Amino acid sequence: MLPKALIDLIDALGSLPGVGPRTAERYAYYLLKARDEKSHALARSVSELKSRVKTCPITFALIDSEEDTSALYTDSSRNKQLIAVVEEPLDVIALEKTSLFKGTYHVLGGAISPIDGIGPEQLHIPELIERIKKDEVSELIVATNASVEGESTALYLQRYLDDAGVSIKITRLARGIPVGVDLEYADQITLSHALEGRQTF
Amino acid sequence: MLPKALIDLIDALGSLPGVGPRTAERYAYYLLKARDEKSHALARSVSELKSRVKTCPITFALIDSEEDTSALYTDSSRNKQLIAVVEEPLDVIALEKTSLFKGTYHVLGGAISPIDGIGPEQLHIPELIERIKKDEVSELIVATNASVEGESTALYLQRYLDDAGVSIKITRLARGIPVGVDLEYADQITLSHALEGRQTF
Repeated sequence: MLPKALIDLIDALGSLPGVGPRTAERYAYYLLKARDEKSHALARSVSELKSRVKTCPITFALIDSEEDTSALYTDSSRNKQLIAVVEEPLDVIALEKTSLFKGTYHVLGGAISPIDGIGPEQLHIPELIERIKKDEVSELIVATNASVEGESTALYLQRYLDDAGVSIKITRLARGIPVGVDLEYADQITLSHALEGRQTF
Repeated sequence: MLPKALIDLIDALGSLPGVGPRTAERYAYYLLKARDEKSHALARSVSELKSRVKTCPITFALIDSEEDTSALYTDSSRNKQLIAVVEEPLDVIALEKTSLFKGTYHVLGGAISPIDGIGPEQLHIPELIERIKKDEVSELIVATNASVEGESTALYLQRYLDDAGVSIKITRLARGIPVGVDLEYADQITLSHALEGRQTF
């Protein structure tokens, strides 16, 4: 019933995460009615994306393909002795937005998840050990997600460093009650973490 | 903090209806990690879309650019004396999915909406009058949306046909309680419509 070109586009848009057929239809129809510049900008940026983005060989953050290493590493104002270990490149952005962290990053490239077939050997852990030695790192902030996979990865990392004979300070992000949440709506595990991690006034 | 190419893509995706910056980030990151075929398929279908889709000169439904007129019009099994008038091309698909309608369609190309600057002169109403005369149409089913704009358009259309001296049967979709909705949750206007339009058992 619909033109083939529109069906193709609806299929392609439907593969985006969380986009069902109705949403894909809506996007496709919008693009059909949008001005040429808009749809061309989208087509161009999708097709150029992979050639214009690469991974930093040291931090594994995303960088422009013309760059050698991440500016968040080379910048002389960043403390190379302090590394925040995160799962994905977008986690770097989340932490940067706080403007509080002045160290460098190390992107693991995911979290250990047997269901998705991701084992520790797929993560950039050996490269982290190298960095720790080379840059004489003094503290590692493990900033993996507060999920089962994130926790397993944090634990695995800690043991791996122990086994590798790397003895530096390892910290992790505080678990507790997020801003704006009423105590009565906080889940039990979060509340337990908040109690355990309580701090003196 | 993010590579330029990724920011470009996030901007382009963020222009899609209902897509905020976080969702656009998620889509962009997915496309970065997706296999090449997937992102290429999306880029290709977006860039080819407008050249491969056109509007049927009779029904104003969307058709392949190689076709002359909509198959839903040329098909000999369709009753050309019966026209369903809809606002947008996707409304045709919604009605076709019922498999109950065997007439033809006429897409107005929108609804009268002074706020959006859409007046009756932008809708394909003169072409509808022409079709009514040429195909000796006996019934017009006005299937505009159940919104203020859709209702105004339906009323305008009815008066326009009156003024043009076209006296054919004009019907409209029944308004009432949708399947699966409890009476206590139905809004007052819907309930009023359902009462007015009540039918004998």
